[in-house]
Amino acid sequence: MKLLYPTSLKLDTQSLEGFSVSLYPYDVKTPIPADHRDAEILITWTNSADNLKDAAKQLTNLRWIQSLAAGPNDVLNAGFDTSKITVTTGSGLHDRTVAEHALGLLLNAARRFFEMRDYQLQRKWPAHLGGPQPDRPKGAFTTLRDANVLIWGFGNIAKTLVPHLIGLGAVVRGVARHAGVRNGIEVYAEDKLAELLPSTDALVMILPGSESTRHALNADRLKLLPSHAWIVNVGRGTSVDELALVDALEKGEVGGAALDVFDKEPLPAESPLWTAPNVIVSPHAAGGRPQDAEVLIADNLRRLLAGQTLKNVI
Amino acid sequence: MKLLYPTSLKLDTQSLEGFSVSLYPYDVKTPIPADHRDAEILITWTNSADNLKDAAKQLTNLRWIQSLAAGPNDVLNAGFDTSKITVTTGSGLHDRTVAEHALGLLLNAARRFFEMRDYQLQRKWPAHLGGPQPDRPKGAFTTLRDANVLIWGFGNIAKTLVPHLIGLGAVVRGVARHAGVRNGIEVYAEDKLAELLPSTDALVMILPGSESTRHALNADRLKLLPSHAWIVNVGRGTSVDELALVDALEKGEVGGAALDVFDKEPLPAESPLWTAPNVIVSPHAAGGRPQDAEVLIADNLRRLLAGQTLKNVI
Repeated sequence: MKLLYPTSLKLDTQSLEGFSVSLYPYDVKTPIPADHRDAEILITWTNSADNLKDAAKQLTNLRWIQSLAAGPNDVLNAGFDTSKITVTTGSGLHDRTVAEHALGLLLNAARRFFEMRDYQLQRKWPAHLGGPQPDRPKGAFTTLRDANVLIWGFGNIAKTLVPHLIGLGAVVRGVARHAGVRNGIEVYAEDKLAELLPSTDALVMILPGSESTRHALNADRLKLLPSHAWIVNVGRGTSVDELALVDALEKGEVGGAALDVFDKEPLPAESPLWTAPNVIVSPHAAGGRPQDAEVLIADNLRRLLAGQTLKNVI
Repeated sequence: MKLLYPTSLKLDTQSLEGFSVSLYPYDVKTPIPADHRDAEILITWTNSADNLKDAAKQLTNLRWIQSLAAGPNDVLNAGFDTSKITVTTGSGLHDRTVAEHALGLLLNAARRFFEMRDYQLQRKWPAHLGGPQPDRPKGAFTTLRDANVLIWGFGNIAKTLVPHLIGLGAVVRGVARHAGVRNGIEVYAEDKLAELLPSTDALVMILPGSESTRHALNADRLKLLPSHAWIVNVGRGTSVDELALVDALEKGEVGGAALDVFDKEPLPAESPLWTAPNVIVSPHAAGGRPQDAEVLIADNLRRLLAGQTLKNVI
C-alpha cells in the first residue's frame, strides 16, 4: 500500500513506520507525479486547489484522505469521489494552538493591549488604563476573574480552553447542538441562547463553517448581549454577520470583537471592521500548525489496515 | 481603638466588624480631620504625598499602618516614626491581577498582537503572522508550549503565574535570592543567571524596587539572552537598565520587551522605549486593584489585638 505525505510541514515519518505501507513525500503545490498516481492514501496540508483537483482525477486507487486541517473544505470541494474515499479531518491537532490564541485574544480585550498600542504609537501614556483601577467593576470586561464566559461550539478546542479560563477565575458555560455536562461544564442547546447571552461578559465562538452556522451570531442575538460584552471568534468567519456586528459596535451595543476569522480572508481593505470601535483584527493566526499529526496518522493507518472505523471521519 | 480606612477603594467594612475597634472612613487626598488624629490604625491606598506627610506629623497615637500596595514606598518616604509604628504591606492582594497581566503580555509577545495592531491601523492584513506556520520553530518565541520561561523574583505573584504557564506547556524555572524548590519549580540563586539566561525564551521579571535590584538586568546579562528572547517586566522599572535594553533591542540582541513598569512613570515622551523595535508599553496596569483586602486587614487586626506578629511586616 502506498501513502503520500506532504512536504509542506515537518513530519516525523519514523513514527509512521512499522506498517506494510510505503511512504513517499510529495509537493502540495504541483500535480502529483505519474509514478505516484497509484497511491491509496493521501495526507493533505495546505495543498493548492489545482493539486487537489488533479489528485481527484488521477489518484484512482485512493481509499483514504487524511487532512491535517480541522475543517478540510479544500478536500471536500476538489471533486474526490467520497462514495469510495474516506475523508478524515485533523480535528484535535489544533486544539492547543487555537486555545492559546483565544486566551490571548481574551486577555488582549480585557487588558486593552490594542488600545495601549494606539497610545504607544503616539508616544502617549494611556493613564486611564494604568494605576489604581476599580476591581472587577460591573458593566465592564476588565479581567477573566469572575467573568462570565460563554463558549459557543463545544468541541475539542473548547475543552482545551476551559481549564485556562477556570484557572483565571472565569465562570464558563457552553452552547452546542446538544445539551449536557462536558468536562464539568454545563453546555446548553442553542435554544437557550436568549437566556444565556444577556449575562455574558465574553462570548467565544468556535463554530465550524457550514450552512447551518452561517450568521449564527446575527443582529437579533447581538442585541441580547450586554453593551460591555466582547466577542472572540476563532472558529469560522461565516458564523458572524459582520455588517450586523459593525452596526452593534458603532452603536455601542457590544463592547468589542477580537476576530481571528472573517467572512472573506484576507479581510478586504474596504471592510468596515478595520476601523470599527474596539475591533481586534488577527489574520487567521490561531491555528495553522498541526501538532502531533503523526499520532493521528499512525492510529488511523493502523485502523485502516485492521479494517476498523477511522477517527475523525467526516 | 480607632481605625481609619480609605475611601479610595470599595472596602466591605462589614468584614472588619466584631473587634473592639471603631471604623472611620477618610479621604486619602486631604489632611486627616482633627477629630481623627487619635487614630491608632491607618489603612492606606493611593494616598497623596501631602496626606501621608501630614499624617506622619499629626497621628501621634499611630501603632500600625496597613498599606494595600505591594511595595508601599509612599508610606516609607512620608516620615512616619517606624520605631513605634509597624508597617505592613499589601503583598498578596495583587497576585492574581499581576499574574493575569503578565500572562497577557507573554501571549501578546508570542502571538505578536502588537504587530497585528500596527497592520490593522493601516488596513493591512499581516499575512506573515497568519495562515500555515512552522510549529514551535527553534530560535523564535511564538507560543508558550515548550517555551523556556525564567521567572526572576519568585514570590507570591510568580507562584500564582506558574500554573497558567505550566498549563500552556511552558517549561518554568525561577531565580531568587535563595535557591530551592518552590511550588514544584526549581528556583536558582542569582549566581546561576549566566547559566540560565542563554536557554531562556521568555524572562519574566517580578523584582521589587530597591537599591539591590537596581539595573539587575544590565547590558552584560542582556547579552546572555538568545536573540529571540523576550523580556516581560511586571515588577519595578528600576530593575532594568533601560538604555542597555534599548541598545540590545536596536542591535537585535534580544527579541523584544513587554514592559508594564519603567524607571520613570509616566514614561517620558522622549524615552527611546516608545519606538524601539518590539517593545510593548503598558502603563503600570498589571495590578492597581487590591483583591480580598478585607481578609488581610481583619487577620492583621486580630493579630494586633492578640499581641501576635502581623503578616507582611516590612
